[in-house]
Amino acid sequence: MPFPDAKILDQRDPLAHLRDRFALPDGLIYLDGNSLGALPKSVVERMQTVVGTEWGHDLITSWNKHDWIDLPRRVAAKIAPLIGAEPGSVIVADSTSVNIFKLLAVALAERSERKVILTEQGNFPTDVYVAGGIARLMGRGHEVRLATADALAEATTEEVAVVMLTEVNYRTGARLDMPALTRRAHEAGALIIWDLCHSAGAVPVDLAAAGADFAVGCGYKFLNGGPGAPAFAYVAPQHQGGLRQPLQGWLGHEAPFEFAPDYRPAEGVDALRAGTPPILSMSALDAALDAYDGVDMHAVKAKADALFDLFVREVEAQPPSLEILTPREAERRGSQISLRHPEAYAVMQSLIARGVIGDFRQPDIIRLGLTPLYLRYADVQRAAEILGEVMRSGEWDRADYKRRAKVV
Amino acid sequence: MPFPDAKILDQRDPLAHLRDRFALPDGLIYLDGNSLGALPKSVVERMQTVVGTEWGHDLITSWNKHDWIDLPRRVAAKIAPLIGAEPGSVIVADSTSVNIFKLLAVALAERSERKVILTEQGNFPTDVYVAGGIARLMGRGHEVRLATADALAEATTEEVAVVMLTEVNYRTGARLDMPALTRRAHEAGALIIWDLCHSAGAVPVDLAAAGADFAVGCGYKFLNGGPGAPAFAYVAPQHQGGLRQPLQGWLGHEAPFEFAPDYRPAEGVDALRAGTPPILSMSALDAALDAYDGVDMHAVKAKADALFDLFVREVEAQPPSLEILTPREAERRGSQISLRHPEAYAVMQSLIARGVIGDFRQPDIIRLGLTPLYLRYADVQRAAEILGEVMRSGEWDRADYKRRAKVV
Repeated sequence: MPFPDAKILDQRDPLAHLRDRFALPDGLIYLDGNSLGALPKSVVERMQTVVGTEWGHDLITSWNKHDWIDLPRRVAAKIAPLIGAEPGSVIVADSTSVNIFKLLAVALAERSERKVILTEQGNFPTDVYVAGGIARLMGRGHEVRLATADALAEATTEEVAVVMLTEVNYRTGARLDMPALTRRAHEAGALIIWDLCHSAGAVPVDLAAAGADFAVGCGYKFLNGGPGAPAFAYVAPQHQGGLRQPLQGWLGHEAPFEFAPDYRPAEGVDALRAGTPPILSMSALDAALDAYDGVDMHAVKAKADALFDLFVREVEAQPPSLEILTPREAERRGSQISLRHPEAYAVMQSLIARGVIGDFRQPDIIRLGLTPLYLRYADVQRAAEILGEVMRSGEWDRADYKRRAKVV
Repeated sequence: MPFPDAKILDQRDPLAHLRDRFALPDGLIYLDGNSLGALPKSVVERMQTVVGTEWGHDLITSWNKHDWIDLPRRVAAKIAPLIGAEPGSVIVADSTSVNIFKLLAVALAERSERKVILTEQGNFPTDVYVAGGIARLMGRGHEVRLATADALAEATTEEVAVVMLTEVNYRTGARLDMPALTRRAHEAGALIIWDLCHSAGAVPVDLAAAGADFAVGCGYKFLNGGPGAPAFAYVAPQHQGGLRQPLQGWLGHEAPFEFAPDYRPAEGVDALRAGTPPILSMSALDAALDAYDGVDMHAVKAKADALFDLFVREVEAQPPSLEILTPREAERRGSQISLRHPEAYAVMQSLIARGVIGDFRQPDIIRLGLTPLYLRYADVQRAAEILGEVMRSGEWDRADYKRRAKVV
């Protein structure tokens, strides 16, 4: 066998020790960390402290005593190195959707003479919906224009105010060329917002090197911050002067506790803060990020690629009933593998019944996340074997596996 | 003594048993539940379950298995009866600031021919800031107009698109006349948004009876949902048809898991949902609301009034160094008592040093929250006595008590 055994790969894995940072249920192979990251052990203790001690015992004094007021910046400072952001360029606040709205408003104000928001056809819906929402609210003829990944560079014309792209596609796992598309946007005089929901903590991202203007991303996927964890937003240093956005809540004020009648935006990315943040959820994200302590994102990507190759090898040893949608070239993908099958939903349900958790994406995609911090090679090999068994046996072909749940 | 003893009042208190629903630190008199509610005991267990079992063990399947997807509606259904909202008229989402933005957008679209947002001078800053933010973004000449409480009715002219008022003032505790001001807004052809941050769980609110159009409110004050708990939003039934707002994130879509390219708003208040909500923080709020199980808001207000009277009696027995700012007429106030003193900050610090927790508000206000679910008459009497001791001794006159913390 030219490929080393999963067991040997696990023995040699320089990231193997990281699995112990997570509380994983026995007997489950969890390939959905791209949708909801697993629970880091550090979170369990932290939540007891934040609930029992900080809230319960220290009550309102915790805003000072435990510095809740600066928690959004402290958490952001842990995310910044994972995405190549300059110090002080990231803030944690609200959801990805809400942060996209803020940054679109900033970008459209900076390019007020242009009317087009360009994005990828097949981008995650929330990005496209929010762009439509702000265009409609502004009522000044803004248009959301869609282009396929291949046509993006060409579609980046001088009509475009802002290009808004998700680096790694949620369905296929395909990764866009951030430096090239950023360069192209700037050549056309446009600004660019990168959505890093499927990149942050998954692949090495270097926003500063790419010259990105803005970015957003999610705390609950590869960053393991817990269900609905707060999101982050990035603003490049050259856009931080006089930064102002329309969701101007009190905590984005220069001096919130002056309770001044006039809004004066805080300096830099703090101007992206709006209302009071959910401290419990944000504390979970804070503790979760410690799972990345001392972790090199290039090593994470290298392991993700090896897991991908292992899975592909197993799938290709099976009868060819599944099409691999995710690009084979390592640089062109994130940290997942997506497979196409006409009954993808039912296949996914039968995998779940066998203890392999992934998810389904419309219309025909089996989506499996590869999360090197807590997956072993043996897990991924076993998952691929189970997938083979499911396909060979046809056990997915059951009415109850085809009945859709509320959340798919 | 004409006034019954605090001890007797506690013995007769029909709400006395509710205190046992909270985990309160020993030896502290907590008069800041209007800023951050105390920890309900039910939250402690729930957080262990949501972190350990729902997230840690059941992982992504919890969206269905524990119905995370409908959590915002379930929590809203617990809030609705506290504010007199029709079933299905409330949703829990985002922060108060963000919800104000959504509802202002809805109201301004419904009154697109008018340009004035009228609010109270001295309203909580976030409301005014957000109104300014949306006016600026829309760029169609909208104006935020301020009027004093007494002048609000007169200022509600036919230029006004939307009146946006906080029922209970955060500084003084003064309560506006919701039915009268709502009627006045409608007479002028305007819509009205009520901010219930200092009302929900504090006083009996009846949005339906008042004919209010919209409302928002906060989960972390009298509702005890934990620091930065998600906020709620109310939309009266007559505004729910075709409801659409600009923060159109994926979870406000009619069918989020279709991942359809076009945004089609969910029916009714679900259209106010935006991104993925912070499930940990929202679960805490869900569990916290059980502290209101079987509680009659009129009984809560009656006790708050008795606590207020007790405190006033003690203050008035002292040398007159403090001015009581909060209205004496029970119907004209919320559930706090605000006192004015030129060195209010230092006085508050000396109270804190003595184990009485309240807060300071600019420029000269000592703000003390009265939360009948967990305060005893004896606590309030003792707090008033300590305040008297502090004032008589002059012990507040220390440099370290005058040094402002980040959060005041």
